[in-house]
Amino acid sequence: MTQRLVVIGGGAAGMSAASAARRTDPSLEVVVLEARGFAAYGMCGLPYFMSGTVDRAEELIAYPPAFFVEKRGIDLRLNTRATGLDAAGHRITFDDGKGEQELSYDRLIVTAGGTPTRPGALGLEDPRVFTVRALEDAIRLRELLDDGSIRTAVVVGAGYIGLEMAETLVTQGVVVTLVEMAAGVMPTLDRPTTDLIEEEVRRHKVDLRLDVAVSALRRVGDKLEVTIGDITETFDAVIVAGGVRAESTLPAAAGALTGPNGALLVDVRMRTSLPDVFAAGDCVALHHLVLGRPAFIPLGPAANKTGRVAGTVAAGGDASFPGIVGTAVVKVFELCVAMTGLTLAQALAEGLDAVVTEAKGKSRAKYYPGSEAVLVRLIHERGGRLLGAVMVGRGDGPAKRIDVLAVALHAGFGIDDLAGLDLSYAPPFAPVYEPVLLAAQAAARPVHVSV
Amino acid sequence: MTQRLVVIGGGAAGMSAASAARRTDPSLEVVVLEARGFAAYGMCGLPYFMSGTVDRAEELIAYPPAFFVEKRGIDLRLNTRATGLDAAGHRITFDDGKGEQELSYDRLIVTAGGTPTRPGALGLEDPRVFTVRALEDAIRLRELLDDGSIRTAVVVGAGYIGLEMAETLVTQGVVVTLVEMAAGVMPTLDRPTTDLIEEEVRRHKVDLRLDVAVSALRRVGDKLEVTIGDITETFDAVIVAGGVRAESTLPAAAGALTGPNGALLVDVRMRTSLPDVFAAGDCVALHHLVLGRPAFIPLGPAANKTGRVAGTVAAGGDASFPGIVGTAVVKVFELCVAMTGLTLAQALAEGLDAVVTEAKGKSRAKYYPGSEAVLVRLIHERGGRLLGAVMVGRGDGPAKRIDVLAVALHAGFGIDDLAGLDLSYAPPFAPVYEPVLLAAQAAARPVHVSV
Repeated sequence: MTQRLVVIGGGAAGMSAASAARRTDPSLEVVVLEARGFAAYGMCGLPYFMSGTVDRAEELIAYPPAFFVEKRGIDLRLNTRATGLDAAGHRITFDDGKGEQELSYDRLIVTAGGTPTRPGALGLEDPRVFTVRALEDAIRLRELLDDGSIRTAVVVGAGYIGLEMAETLVTQGVVVTLVEMAAGVMPTLDRPTTDLIEEEVRRHKVDLRLDVAVSALRRVGDKLEVTIGDITETFDAVIVAGGVRAESTLPAAAGALTGPNGALLVDVRMRTSLPDVFAAGDCVALHHLVLGRPAFIPLGPAANKTGRVAGTVAAGGDASFPGIVGTAVVKVFELCVAMTGLTLAQALAEGLDAVVTEAKGKSRAKYYPGSEAVLVRLIHERGGRLLGAVMVGRGDGPAKRIDVLAVALHAGFGIDDLAGLDLSYAPPFAPVYEPVLLAAQAAARPVHVSV
Repeated sequence: MTQRLVVIGGGAAGMSAASAARRTDPSLEVVVLEARGFAAYGMCGLPYFMSGTVDRAEELIAYPPAFFVEKRGIDLRLNTRATGLDAAGHRITFDDGKGEQELSYDRLIVTAGGTPTRPGALGLEDPRVFTVRALEDAIRLRELLDDGSIRTAVVVGAGYIGLEMAETLVTQGVVVTLVEMAAGVMPTLDRPTTDLIEEEVRRHKVDLRLDVAVSALRRVGDKLEVTIGDITETFDAVIVAGGVRAESTLPAAAGALTGPNGALLVDVRMRTSLPDVFAAGDCVALHHLVLGRPAFIPLGPAANKTGRVAGTVAAGGDASFPGIVGTAVVKVFELCVAMTGLTLAQALAEGLDAVVTEAKGKSRAKYYPGSEAVLVRLIHERGGRLLGAVMVGRGDGPAKRIDVLAVALHAGFGIDDLAGLDLSYAPPFAPVYEPVLLAAQAAARPVHVSV
């Protein structure tokens, strides 16, 4: 008898899972339930569609629905929301607009993604309040931007999505207020780095307000009255770009174990604690190789990879996902900010004897046109193991350079290993001493242990 | 009594060694003998000075001589050629234009660099014959280019320097003939990659002639008569960009052990087989971590690092250099070609059960402007250890991406380790699946061992 795999969620993780499952076992029936009207799009591209950098919404979609149905034999059902899970009975319920129905499964993969947290006032459902997770929201916002309806906006949350949205709106001529509850932008970064980001944001005329919250939100005619701290002002739009909570409601209610931020706990084969239920993408906590325990860092590359592993294993194949080191990069106007592993604050909070070594290098030979400064901060045990790194610079110098440190974290390298790395050099692309080598040499210098 | 360290050669390795030695032991007397009139310049920048991309020759010089003398207390003697070495007596002889003199040392570091090989006809010393190793040659060629004296040129050797020179000359409006004795450009690369390079070179109207040698060279008036194979033609200049031989004459004559290409054999602390004689830079063979034996791959980054190690150890400090993996990158017109580790041909010649897996990825999210194709070739043991990689693409996508593979080679990673790497992603800088991850997945697919 044909086995049935049901996938909840048709985002990057869900469609990767469905495709991998069909590839592993072409006889498998694969049903994907997607609550919204689009599948398999790059959520991370939304700011660039809203800014007009990407012209058409279709460009963000990896493959159209027909591709999955016709080429990959996947039963993709859009506008279909999963509403219940009976893990013991191997059954789910769903609603496709024609009332609640039931579907049995042999194996289930949950890739329900994340839900933007909307604390307090931001709970307001309003056509002028937007999140940055759904293509529908992005299309709606882009229309309003294109017809000139939005001249002022407040972006709530100055994490990487909030920063990208501030840039997007400034690009479109909008006067932007960026509000962050924490004392600095990107609360997961250390202070000297965030100073550079804040300077860049303010240089582009963004009204950055730190250490303050949005306490009230009210619709007045075409506009929104927003109370930021003690001050009430009027804006054309509000963008909610705060934190994300793992969307684990159904499996959690069925008894699945969860960890940080409500994210589902999984093993390296993406199995949850429920029988025959797998999970992948933004709704799971992944093993952090530096911390040595599950962490909730919902990003696109891991969503794709874990979806693929879940789909392969659920279909009877073998695959595993070793874990993450927390690598990320964000463009903030002309600045490129890249990070991997732990920040100093995180390392100290873990009780590690951590220090920071900073160095300033160049993105190309200093005499070659377009050479830009690259700041490197290495977080490491005194004279020992690498724990993390941050790189900041103009242009795209830091973006792929951080990967050297990411691989070094995967390998468990120490500072002395870093200093000896054989990295590529040619004047148009790199200086003879890569910034990371300068930093590693500076870190190793006090004890003369290596180059 | 003050100890004296003598350094032969004032290039990148020599000045790194001298500086590291003074830093390690400020009481040390450090004498550097440099045969030519410049010290501490980036030889790799010469093509970009000749093309006018870099305006002034001074920009290529890391620090002026006065900096080393006044700030670092180094006795730097330009236009001073070492002429003899008495290792047992701890003495060298040198000629600074005022006749041969003697100098005793406590420790000696040889950083004499490489000598361009000038087979047969190319031995001709002529003001219209140039190598690409000395700033003097580059200044002379740039003057002739600037005053329009060079309209046609033949570049002999299509390794990376020959390719860079072909581009340089085309940029300056010169009609270029590029001659290579081997059957393809960059003889250290595998065929499908070299096809792309050859196409790019010919697309820019370079007359590329493969599998043929220059057999005669004769001065006729202002021009040079050059015989390429059976054909004799006339050119305004000849650029010799063939191989390089390690300049190890003095230590070798004194009994130092040498290896491939006549390069000096050294241990991880840069000690030669002669007592108190160290060596660094282009005149040494370095431990190749993939081959497991010394190899001669003279490149700038290792010259700087080994110079630093030699200087530190010679001055009584501790440092070591673990070895190289053969990472390099070259710009060939709009193409960027990056490599690390072994090619397929090299791996097979080592008797390894090596295969290649190829994948095509993107340099940015495919919908983001400026996204370029990146071709990845992974050379690996069947289902196992990574042995090498090549990346080719337009723009600078491959340049720093190859470093991920370089670090993976340092770490001894297998294909499955590669597939799980947590690499940076944001649409302006990278696609959600890095090209190397696509290649690693493709390599792992047949046996379903990992993501």
